Amino acid sequence: MIPVRGLPEVRERDDVAALIAAAVELEGGDVVVVAHKVVSKAEGRVVRLDDVEPSAQARDLADGEDPRRLEVILGESMRLVRTRPPLVIAETRHGFVCASAGVDASNAPEPDSVVLLPEDPDASAARLRDRLLELTGADVAVIVSDSFGRAWRQGTTDVAIGCAGLQPLLDLHGRRDSTGYELHATVIAVADELAGAAELVRGKLDRIPVAIVRGYAAEGDGTAAELVMPRERDLFR
Amino acid sequence: MIPVRGLPEVRERDDVAALIAAAVELEGGDVVVVAHKVVSKAEGRVVRLDDVEPSAQARDLADGEDPRRLEVILGESMRLVRTRPPLVIAETRHGFVCASAGVDASNAPEPDSVVLLPEDPDASAARLRDRLLELTGADVAVIVSDSFGRAWRQGTTDVAIGCAGLQPLLDLHGRRDSTGYELHATVIAVADELAGAAELVRGKLDRIPVAIVRGYAAEGDGTAAELVMPRERDLFR
Repeated sequence: MIPVRGLPEVRERDDVAALIAAAVELEGGDVVVVAHKVVSKAEGRVVRLDDVEPSAQARDLADGEDPRRLEVILGESMRLVRTRPPLVIAETRHGFVCASAGVDASNAPEPDSVVLLPEDPDASAARLRDRLLELTGADVAVIVSDSFGRAWRQGTTDVAIGCAGLQPLLDLHGRRDSTGYELHATVIAVADELAGAAELVRGKLDRIPVAIVRGYAAEGDGTAAELVMPRERDLFR
Repeated sequence: MIPVRGLPEVRERDDVAALIAAAVELEGGDVVVVAHKVVSKAEGRVVRLDDVEPSAQARDLADGEDPRRLEVILGESMRLVRTRPPLVIAETRHGFVCASAGVDASNAPEPDSVVLLPEDPDASAARLRDRLLELTGADVAVIVSDSFGRAWRQGTTDVAIGCAGLQPLLDLHGRRDSTGYELHATVIAVADELAGAAELVRGKLDRIPVAIVRGYAAEGDGTAAELVMPRERDLFR
């Protein structure tokens, strides 16, 4: 686990891959975990609250907080899953279920702005991966991560919201354990475990938005969209 | 991340700490992550299905699977959260919400038996920690882990069900980011991220039930019970 220190503050249209390549020596097989905030900022996914006119629904949900922030959350939500004003758990257009539909005021470039999730985090991860290969010659995997709360458990863990160059689910179906039993907990969300592991070395306050996991033999290829439980299998949607 | 190889198959009343101490050189500050299966087996938390008489409810839920296994699951459940026979999501007496109330047939010592969660995984972790200190002189943290599914997301990740010698939640409340904003995602479930990180090197089929996380500066002390969302704050119970 290698935290990538010395990255500058990222601005719109910055070449994030070039910033990473300048800050760390990458090796083939590395898993590069990037906090979505830097991707979102580079992609211009920042909203100035002065430009937002809150709706009646946003005012209802705000409960003393800034209704313009709630308006942005509503705009990012496909569906509200639970609300306890001002807390909103929403399903995003990507299918992620998370607090505030991923809209975050912390780490925004200006106090009066909020950062949204990337439009298509899997595409962002794929672009970063391609560009890192171009710049460094290293064939790496890329995970774009965010901190999500969980049902029933306290605290957030970082999970993969975008992914390229590794299969996010390690499927052990049909493989048997040493007593001959087919394994039950057979699909492991390794991309989420990698994102969480990276979070441990990134720190929240030290502003280390990127970490490298070296020595993990990533298998296959896939997207973080595969981590979204299909509606027909979902018992909690 | 150091997988601990060469552990023997664990049996009831085995001294798990002694087995770990014999297999790896521990250092102070290490986080020792132990899959609950070895703890459960050492504590005798194994049920032979031949000894189980299934109830009518267990037969209803079995849906072609072994109703005796469902009976054991019902016995471990405080409350059924969702059922889609034979899948049962239950709340255990510890407050964990997980598939089959943590009852697992894979990796059981005999084909016709199942492994339960430890009675008190935090106490198991504390005992392991004390015994490792006694045997090795190394002041380590211990996490007892299990693979849990998640609402809305595919695949399992390993989480902490028992914990000793570290604070499982890193609370950043009141700390501010560099723009002066109070951080919103302020409580990080580091024990769950550590358990997930350990899972990445443990492997499912290679039978490596223990891994060491070295170089993580664990803070404070606490129990995995703190990771259970209190009922009054829980939007999904």
